[in-house]
Amino acid sequence: MLIMLTIGILANALLAQEHPNLILTKAGVEKIKAELGKVPLFDATVSATKAEVDAEIALGIHTPIPKDYSGGYTHERHKRNFLILQKAGVLFQILDDEKYAIYVRDMLFQYEAMYKDLPIHPQQRSYARGKLFWQCLNDSNWLVYVSQAYDCIYDWLPPKERKKLEKNLFRPFADFISIKNPQFFNRVHNHSTWGNAAVGMIGLVMNDEELIQRALYGIKNDGLEIDAKDNDGGFIKLPGQKPGFLSNIDEPFSPDGYFTEGPYYQRYAMYPFLIFAEGLHNVKPEYKIFEHKDSVLLKSVNTLLNLSDPDGEFFSLNDAQKGMSYYSRELVTAVDIAYYFGGNNPQLLSIAEKQGSVLLDDSGLAVALGVRDGKAQPFIKKSINLSDGADGKQGGVGILRYGTEDLTLVFKYAAQGLSHGHYDKLSFSLFEKGDEVIQDYGLARFVNIEQKGGGNYLKENTTWAKQTIAHNTIVQNETSHFNGEYEIGSKYHSELYFYDASNIEVQVVSAKEKNAYPGTEMHRTMAIIKDENFEKPFVLDILKVNSSNPNQYDLPLYFIGQVLQVNFDYESPLTLDTLGKENGYQHLYLEGKGSPTRDNTQFSWLDNGRFYTYTSATKKSDELLFTRIGANDPEFNLRREAALMIRRKNTGNTVFASVIEPHGSYSTVSEFAVNSNSSILNLKVVHDDAEYTAVAVKDVNGGECLMIISNIDSSKTSTHKLKIGDRDYQWSGPYYFK
Amino acid sequence: MLIMLTIGILANALLAQEHPNLILTKAGVEKIKAELGKVPLFDATVSATKAEVDAEIALGIHTPIPKDYSGGYTHERHKRNFLILQKAGVLFQILDDEKYAIYVRDMLFQYEAMYKDLPIHPQQRSYARGKLFWQCLNDSNWLVYVSQAYDCIYDWLPPKERKKLEKNLFRPFADFISIKNPQFFNRVHNHSTWGNAAVGMIGLVMNDEELIQRALYGIKNDGLEIDAKDNDGGFIKLPGQKPGFLSNIDEPFSPDGYFTEGPYYQRYAMYPFLIFAEGLHNVKPEYKIFEHKDSVLLKSVNTLLNLSDPDGEFFSLNDAQKGMSYYSRELVTAVDIAYYFGGNNPQLLSIAEKQGSVLLDDSGLAVALGVRDGKAQPFIKKSINLSDGADGKQGGVGILRYGTEDLTLVFKYAAQGLSHGHYDKLSFSLFEKGDEVIQDYGLARFVNIEQKGGGNYLKENTTWAKQTIAHNTIVQNETSHFNGEYEIGSKYHSELYFYDASNIEVQVVSAKEKNAYPGTEMHRTMAIIKDENFEKPFVLDILKVNSSNPNQYDLPLYFIGQVLQVNFDYESPLTLDTLGKENGYQHLYLEGKGSPTRDNTQFSWLDNGRFYTYTSATKKSDELLFTRIGANDPEFNLRREAALMIRRKNTGNTVFASVIEPHGSYSTVSEFAVNSNSSILNLKVVHDDAEYTAVAVKDVNGGECLMIISNIDSSKTSTHKLKIGDRDYQWSGPYYFK
Repeated sequence: MLIMLTIGILANALLAQEHPNLILTKAGVEKIKAELGKVPLFDATVSATKAEVDAEIALGIHTPIPKDYSGGYTHERHKRNFLILQKAGVLFQILDDEKYAIYVRDMLFQYEAMYKDLPIHPQQRSYARGKLFWQCLNDSNWLVYVSQAYDCIYDWLPPKERKKLEKNLFRPFADFISIKNPQFFNRVHNHSTWGNAAVGMIGLVMNDEELIQRALYGIKNDGLEIDAKDNDGGFIKLPGQKPGFLSNIDEPFSPDGYFTEGPYYQRYAMYPFLIFAEGLHNVKPEYKIFEHKDSVLLKSVNTLLNLSDPDGEFFSLNDAQKGMSYYSRELVTAVDIAYYFGGNNPQLLSIAEKQGSVLLDDSGLAVALGVRDGKAQPFIKKSINLSDGADGKQGGVGILRYGTEDLTLVFKYAAQGLSHGHYDKLSFSLFEKGDEVIQDYGLARFVNIEQKGGGNYLKENTTWAKQTIAHNTIVQNETSHFNGEYEIGSKYHSELYFYDASNIEVQVVSAKEKNAYPGTEMHRTMAIIKDENFEKPFVLDILKVNSSNPNQYDLPLYFIGQVLQVNFDYESPLTLDTLGKENGYQHLYLEGKGSPTRDNTQFSWLDNGRFYTYTSATKKSDELLFTRIGANDPEFNLRREAALMIRRKNTGNTVFASVIEPHGSYSTVSEFAVNSNSSILNLKVVHDDAEYTAVAVKDVNGGECLMIISNIDSSKTSTHKLKIGDRDYQWSGPYYFK
Repeated sequence: MLIMLTIGILANALLAQEHPNLILTKAGVEKIKAELGKVPLFDATVSATKAEVDAEIALGIHTPIPKDYSGGYTHERHKRNFLILQKAGVLFQILDDEKYAIYVRDMLFQYEAMYKDLPIHPQQRSYARGKLFWQCLNDSNWLVYVSQAYDCIYDWLPPKERKKLEKNLFRPFADFISIKNPQFFNRVHNHSTWGNAAVGMIGLVMNDEELIQRALYGIKNDGLEIDAKDNDGGFIKLPGQKPGFLSNIDEPFSPDGYFTEGPYYQRYAMYPFLIFAEGLHNVKPEYKIFEHKDSVLLKSVNTLLNLSDPDGEFFSLNDAQKGMSYYSRELVTAVDIAYYFGGNNPQLLSIAEKQGSVLLDDSGLAVALGVRDGKAQPFIKKSINLSDGADGKQGGVGILRYGTEDLTLVFKYAAQGLSHGHYDKLSFSLFEKGDEVIQDYGLARFVNIEQKGGGNYLKENTTWAKQTIAHNTIVQNETSHFNGEYEIGSKYHSELYFYDASNIEVQVVSAKEKNAYPGTEMHRTMAIIKDENFEKPFVLDILKVNSSNPNQYDLPLYFIGQVLQVNFDYESPLTLDTLGKENGYQHLYLEGKGSPTRDNTQFSWLDNGRFYTYTSATKKSDELLFTRIGANDPEFNLRREAALMIRRKNTGNTVFASVIEPHGSYSTVSEFAVNSNSSILNLKVVHDDAEYTAVAVKDVNGGECLMIISNIDSSKTSTHKLKIGDRDYQWSGPYYFK
């Protein structure tokens, strides 16, 4: 037994010394070479990669002294270097052309010569400054890619040169981003995931068990204080939290594969998660990394794809730059690895086809072969409810979809989402096909655009984008949820009340939030309903607020498009003033102020050749505010976009009931306006008490539908009885709809 | 001789009595029937048309009592009726299915029963109210289409029924829109073109020579007062102007085929121009209508196609709704007729392919056959200079294009453009590929969207869209050109100084305006330049203003996108106030106010993944204003878009010299920012006197280019000498560039 184990370890050690073995493998390279020229998608990627790398080789090697923030020359140059190094390494392996190995070697030795005397990066904004870059995060990016390049030329390099590189560059580099920066390395955070992967991957190539263990389990005695924070306000260490790569899988991913920071950061983190996992799988299969936590890494790829609109763009949840999509390089990695290591789901092939490129490794080859052989099937996105939290018990995100993504509702009742979280409990966004109808603002940042604050987070991200008023949810007394305090927000999460998408014509998600405002309970139920008297599906929104104290409630609707018509009177100020002084209100101009003239407020707008009407059961005493983003924004960091806001003052318990109704179309070519008017005659809260809330919608075709929510019993089997007016209703389950 | 002529006339009369003969012809129908099922584009149109008409037949015939403005039910219903009638008539002819004839007949008799007692339309906004619609214009639309339907069932109807229709419906209808409304019919205006075509087409079908003559030459004694105006402020009758269809060709079209109202209205007018011309060609070939005025009708189709961006969208010149394009039904007509009657230009076939449908007549068949037989060639748009005015001597529009429409500059130095004209002498707009970079605002109207002022012109069209400050040109002392007075503006036009696109790397257009502000002369030269030290072509703009009096000059730049960076200091007001009180200034908020800190002002922005920088040789005493549209706009009729404005006070003679420089790219997927900084180091007016103005541009790569404009001699052959600093320059022609 002991002998076998010893032999096993020795065999393993010997195998581990045969390179490449990290992402490319000896056997894989042989297979790739045998298929070259026969697999269109793979060949296209090889030839695009070759063109890119050859062009860079022609430009010569440049390793400037680090100086700039992202967007600046030295940052972008070093970033480009690591991306090209990785590609050059791969090309050396699969094309057998030594010029690529020479290029990698020469650049590595330039780094080697530079690194030992390199001071900490001169830019001081980060809580963990790197050497090549202004933050350890980017240094880690560098090492994740460069480890792969090194692996590719490892066997080709004389041992003496390897030794020199490892001694002067790789080992000190790995130590710098880990033991020299535990506040960076030892967190549960996407930063640390990159750090862990970087240290682990170079450890795998160098066969350095100490680095591998450090990567997987973190630094033992990191000396970090509990509750310390980084420059974005995120916690560095929380009580009881374990560091290392495995914890970074365990903690932020829910059992459903939802990453608590949201899809924008999940996308960013996917690369180190999956590429290190692939390396670990290849070099240390005994860790069974892809099976870890019920295969959550592979599951999370499917989850992430489901967190996108029909154009493949990720929903803006928390800090997220709009336009990021599954066309990104990280998702090429994710899709290929999920396909290859996750059971060859043919639906992933259709995404790969759209991406138009693959990884140049075994997984990419498998995908390209699958596509070539016609195995691709459409990736079908349905309604889905995703739990948040390591145990899946910290709220979640509900996505309701109608048809082939004709209408998509994204309802957020999640946890804080670490330092990139926004204070927007029970908020939502809405899409018709690939277009935003009701938007989530996203982040206030122009990633990598130097002119805008070095491409980093702008201060408006804190003063505007994270604040509750920047979202489509309730703001009480002009203060953000949890008073906008991360420490408090991080302690709580909303709670799912029920989710039921079993009937495609009536899909409902309902959640409660009890902690955003102490003493106030919010209960929001959102449904996508397709009624035969309506041309298109609509969204019914019932937001019940309970509070023993009188408050002011603001409910904004960040519509995209041009105002067409309202059914209320309002005054338009001659000069524009801000709506408030703080908590995001200082960034809003008040463009109009009125109050309802009927018991229903209607507001219609036009966007992208489609009409929309918002109908809300308002009270005479409500204020209706037209707002526009852009006040106190001297550098034009914010987009000048609008909202209609319902303000209800001096109120304890109340219900906001409304419908968002897409209808008709307009073409600037035919100039036909089709079905430009709402089909809603009246929307009314017909019943509301502690137990039940009921909303009736009458349409212009004489129909009426009624939604009753059971407020305190969400059991599927409980039966309910309610008399509304002179009619008796009886049903089982958390809601009644007819 | 006399006998032959008589026989000829008789034969003609007899032939004319064989129907269809207007748009469809007996012979054409036979040919169509023979080809059915063999010509994909034609067949696709037949089947789409059949589906549409069959669906309408199933809904039954509805001819409601007229009541609404455009966008409203009765308007849209009657509009739909005439469109469907025309199609049903054609289907009867080519499919031989009597149900279509019955549908046409039955609906015509419903109109016949209704028309005789029909009062004038109840909506009172128009200077010429119709009966079915709120304006005679739409009634004329109806008759243009319905004449075709009537022609198709003419031979099928018993003579008695024809007589009844003609007596009670068509003749009174034609008389109402002509002799009862001479203020509508007898103008030179797109309204009258529709009226003329309507009367002429029903005249051709009925073989009613009186109506045909009235259509071609107008009403003899119309009793109209000279200088009377319509409800849009357009002149109804000018001294010496002749009425009728032929005058409506002669007057608004320049010899180059430019229509003085601009492409949006040219598109609208094309249908009656061409469809009546086709009818006249078929029934009265002796008029040689397609050869009239050097074949200007056919030529104008090519001109109109050239007035579009790479997406086929027409440039916004004067009143124009953005998004209108060559995909419109009017352009299907125009392209097919121009192809068939204008010498089978194979480039038109590629436009027809994109349009995806054809006319269901001889011309459409010819196009569909050409496409089927692979004859289509790409429609190549090059730089083009288009004269304005009946004689081509009233200014014009210069369009400079680089590459395959990579960059397109639209420079307007035209006449007023009738009642749809804007007060924007020497203004411009700029496109990169199909995207607006520097925009012309267009009109303030939501065509056919009832919720917005009945779909008609909004008052902001006058108070904002037409005003000079809404355009990218000079405003003197905060008043519009010609004081915004149509009577004055109509008397003048700008004058081409020179146009030279012979060198693709240096394309120049230059024009002068002497009347917009009495005592002030403006001379603007705009060039597209491709310099090897710049990644992309840029626009050089030299605007020389001469005035003996000190004035305030405002030069706005309506950029599209997000502000990135400026190189000057400015203050941002806490509350937004309007920039002025009138002439469009009341619609602008002042978002920032500063002044140059260097002799060059630089301003960069980002749009649609591309970077742009504006560099201008400003003076320390200039004011730099960030403005935003939207003040005094209580109904949100205007788009909240921005400008940077250079304000130069208390100045007589001056030069505004600047460069608009597209560069680089940004992707929200890769998050790479490429070439995000301007390549311009310095831009300087190095010489300026009455004779010459010279501007030098130094770039960051050490290059320098120099443009010298000869201000008073635009001859191509004159030779010039100028000493700038210690260098002597010698050249011939209106400009020097190196």
